[in-house]
Amino acid sequence: MLDKIRIVLVNTTHPGNIGAAARAMKNMGLSELCLVEPKLFPHPEANARSSRADDILEAALVVDSLEEAVADCQLVVGTSARGRHIPWPIVNPRELSAQISERLSNSSDDFKVAILFGREDRGLTNEELHSCHLHVHIPTNPDFSSLNVGAAVQVIAYELRMALQESVVDEAPQWGVDWDIELAGQKEIELMFNHLEQTLVDIKFLEPDNPRQLMTRLRRLLLRAVPDKVEVNILRGILTKINRSIRKD
Amino acid sequence: MLDKIRIVLVNTTHPGNIGAAARAMKNMGLSELCLVEPKLFPHPEANARSSRADDILEAALVVDSLEEAVADCQLVVGTSARGRHIPWPIVNPRELSAQISERLSNSSDDFKVAILFGREDRGLTNEELHSCHLHVHIPTNPDFSSLNVGAAVQVIAYELRMALQESVVDEAPQWGVDWDIELAGQKEIELMFNHLEQTLVDIKFLEPDNPRQLMTRLRRLLLRAVPDKVEVNILRGILTKINRSIRKD
Repeated sequence: MLDKIRIVLVNTTHPGNIGAAARAMKNMGLSELCLVEPKLFPHPEANARSSRADDILEAALVVDSLEEAVADCQLVVGTSARGRHIPWPIVNPRELSAQISERLSNSSDDFKVAILFGREDRGLTNEELHSCHLHVHIPTNPDFSSLNVGAAVQVIAYELRMALQESVVDEAPQWGVDWDIELAGQKEIELMFNHLEQTLVDIKFLEPDNPRQLMTRLRRLLLRAVPDKVEVNILRGILTKINRSIRKD
Repeated sequence: MLDKIRIVLVNTTHPGNIGAAARAMKNMGLSELCLVEPKLFPHPEANARSSRADDILEAALVVDSLEEAVADCQLVVGTSARGRHIPWPIVNPRELSAQISERLSNSSDDFKVAILFGREDRGLTNEELHSCHLHVHIPTNPDFSSLNVGAAVQVIAYELRMALQESVVDEAPQWGVDWDIELAGQKEIELMFNHLEQTLVDIKFLEPDNPRQLMTRLRRLLLRAVPDKVEVNILRGILTKINRSIRKD
């Protein structure tokens, strides 16, 4: 369904940002880029920043007006900061992606969505925003709210992928539980692993010349559990006991 | 809770990426940056790409080893592509943020999280990944999976903000419903608005010299509804009727 979505960059000034947007799109599985009056394009800096997403840049449609860019689209979404003179229906990227997903599921094959990104210095004009069905706002630190264009494309493309590629959400296993004892710091955990490894060598369980994946598997096991301080102390206590019992032999 | 999270960039080659990471962090409300053996830092390109997130660059801690960067952290997370030799517990950025949120709610004040980002060309080494409690993988197009470091920081920082700043998720109003009739294209909608505007002038409801926000409010009203083709045809029909009735007067 990602092929139903067109990314439209309006009057982009820096070609590097066009390249970054293309890379972000390709990383997330989007492919259709439209440029409305870019200042410099094509440009080597766009290709450099795209990092082998040149195919998206080469296929990009360059047009003279926003009307042309969205003429065949049934849903037009403008990225917007807050505080416009007249408020417009506004969603965050997650809500937008959920709604696009739902609409695409219930629409004909030629349903097309355009998402508009404005100029580096001042975004989309009010007139451009008023041509949109709705606006999307990326939540930001209110004291530092201006995102780089490529970064904004990255966030929205990521949310679209999360919503439209169902498999990606549930593919990772869950881990861990909550702890009520203070967790161990990384330093004491590493000391514990050092102690463990030395002990395993001492007891000839671990052959230094042929360690295989033994420590790796032990690390994964223990780190997955996110040990607390009491647990680390217990493990160290066990190791110390082993060390002492060896010396007595 | 965002102040409990440290972003750690390991052996970053391009200072521009450090600047982009700093900007992404500040946009999302993160502030603590740690650099493990950056190739070039400080560097003007980092400041340029940070776009006034210089304060984060100036406060960044530069260290010689990953151990130093995470010594006081109770949870260490490594960003990872798939397909490592030995699988590790892995979550996506949304799951990671939910779990960090839960842990921070149930932990003491000195609980600290580190999230590690690797080199531009080959990410984190296996050894570095094995020092982590878990890994986070950003879902990507399997054919083009290598994200820019700044873009990876942007996605994870965005998810952290979404999870840790509760207010951001529910602040936007919902809009619209599903449609079972084919939706109107943007072109026919604009033709309808042109027709409407001209008609409003014709009937002297809209004064061209003093339009105020009338068309804007009408656009917002109609666009918010995402009109379908039948609805647009009905509106055009009404306008045509009005036009004819005026001419008869």
